[in-house]
Amino acid sequence: MSKLTKDVVRHISEELANTLPQLSVNVVLFRYHHLEIQVATVDFVFASLTVIPGGFIHQNESVDQAAQRVLAQHSCYKNAILREIGVFGAAQRMFKDAFTDLRKLGVPQSNIDQLSKRHVSFAYYSIINDSRTETNDNPIFTQVQWKSLKSLAPLALDHSEIVAKGHQKMASDVLSQPVLQSFLPEEFTLANLQGLYQCIFQRKIDRGNFRQRILKSGILQKVGKRLKKGSGRPADLYRFDESKYFASLSTEIKLGF
Amino acid sequence: MSKLTKDVVRHISEELANTLPQLSVNVVLFRYHHLEIQVATVDFVFASLTVIPGGFIHQNESVDQAAQRVLAQHSCYKNAILREIGVFGAAQRMFKDAFTDLRKLGVPQSNIDQLSKRHVSFAYYSIINDSRTETNDNPIFTQVQWKSLKSLAPLALDHSEIVAKGHQKMASDVLSQPVLQSFLPEEFTLANLQGLYQCIFQRKIDRGNFRQRILKSGILQKVGKRLKKGSGRPADLYRFDESKYFASLSTEIKLGF
Repeated sequence: MSKLTKDVVRHISEELANTLPQLSVNVVLFRYHHLEIQVATVDFVFASLTVIPGGFIHQNESVDQAAQRVLAQHSCYKNAILREIGVFGAAQRMFKDAFTDLRKLGVPQSNIDQLSKRHVSFAYYSIINDSRTETNDNPIFTQVQWKSLKSLAPLALDHSEIVAKGHQKMASDVLSQPVLQSFLPEEFTLANLQGLYQCIFQRKIDRGNFRQRILKSGILQKVGKRLKKGSGRPADLYRFDESKYFASLSTEIKLGF
Repeated sequence: MSKLTKDVVRHISEELANTLPQLSVNVVLFRYHHLEIQVATVDFVFASLTVIPGGFIHQNESVDQAAQRVLAQHSCYKNAILREIGVFGAAQRMFKDAFTDLRKLGVPQSNIDQLSKRHVSFAYYSIINDSRTETNDNPIFTQVQWKSLKSLAPLALDHSEIVAKGHQKMASDVLSQPVLQSFLPEEFTLANLQGLYQCIFQRKIDRGNFRQRILKSGILQKVGKRLKKGSGRPADLYRFDESKYFASLSTEIKLGF
């Protein structure tokens, strides 16, 4: 048995001995890269299934802690902001025969049976704003691959649905949570911010109208530097005026009375 | 053994044989009654614990279906709208010694052990708009009692937290979901609607400003009848103009560009 195979077999057996049965967590990890929103995907090392990062919940950790652990296993992020997407709990939610090949690796049948059972998953999303090198601290998955949200190929099980609901939730959080800030580097151009809005809400936004409204809102401040890119005029750099940006985020709905 | 005790013992044993281990659902059930928002609570018949309705997830049903079943067991509502609140998954989330007395009733120790384990719960909220008689189709709970949300005494486990998060979620759903309509009878006065807004957002709303804005919004239509109550002037009755009300609900956030 190769070292890799041994690691897989041991990891599976240790995880299943110590986790809540038939329950998992998944994390939709977003980033804004080259003017598009990207999603982190991974493949199982022993089955050709592309999924979003996920794992089980240890008996001695909370569901949130399990999601943080999963996130840390696939990125360099510890204690990132995780926001709830919701529960994925269909009665037939199971990988079925996807794991039968594990027997050849030496995984006990009882473990394969447990993995093949119906699982309920609780999903979170998180946003990272830079391109630090990803880690891979989970032997059953490949390194993270970043895929464009707009042209994401179908994922295994209901993972495409989890990503779609995560995107929807993230878009609806824009007014009440610091979602935009999480996507951007500290300094950015208005074109960059406009592109982000366009990706999140999946529609064209008029440039002049956008610039006028966003500058009037007071949530940005000019850095005093310019970014020269391509042949065009250098673009002003902005950063969030944190106090005004946070004050603009509101959990109370603006009803007009 | 009394008939009641037999039913309890059989119900527990049947439920545990057929459900996902260490997993439950809870439902926060709201109604608007006597100008206040009320929450449905139940007591265990064999332990002095006040909780919100809840139960396990059968192997052959989805998490949503389990929540619908729980709702139907405590009310006359089938296929009510259920909206997700989130996951309650603390590592120490367990009733501990609350169920030891079940041994006296004849419940097997293995069942008591299973009930006493750490459980993860997915919570939903639902809204009912009238006072039809509640049913009680679950032998381990008493009939539903309606308690004022504003002065709700602490509930067992983390159920007060579930109610608080449910209230918060419901308030944030007002602009995108037909939440207001679910609370109200078909015909209502402006004072009734203003009271509902006040309960949901927990703040005083100016009467004149409210009437002006809400009538200008076009989501209401006058019924053409008046309600005489007490010694005051009879109040006009209104109903939602459904097409305009639903059009006003929006999942796209109004950004101004």
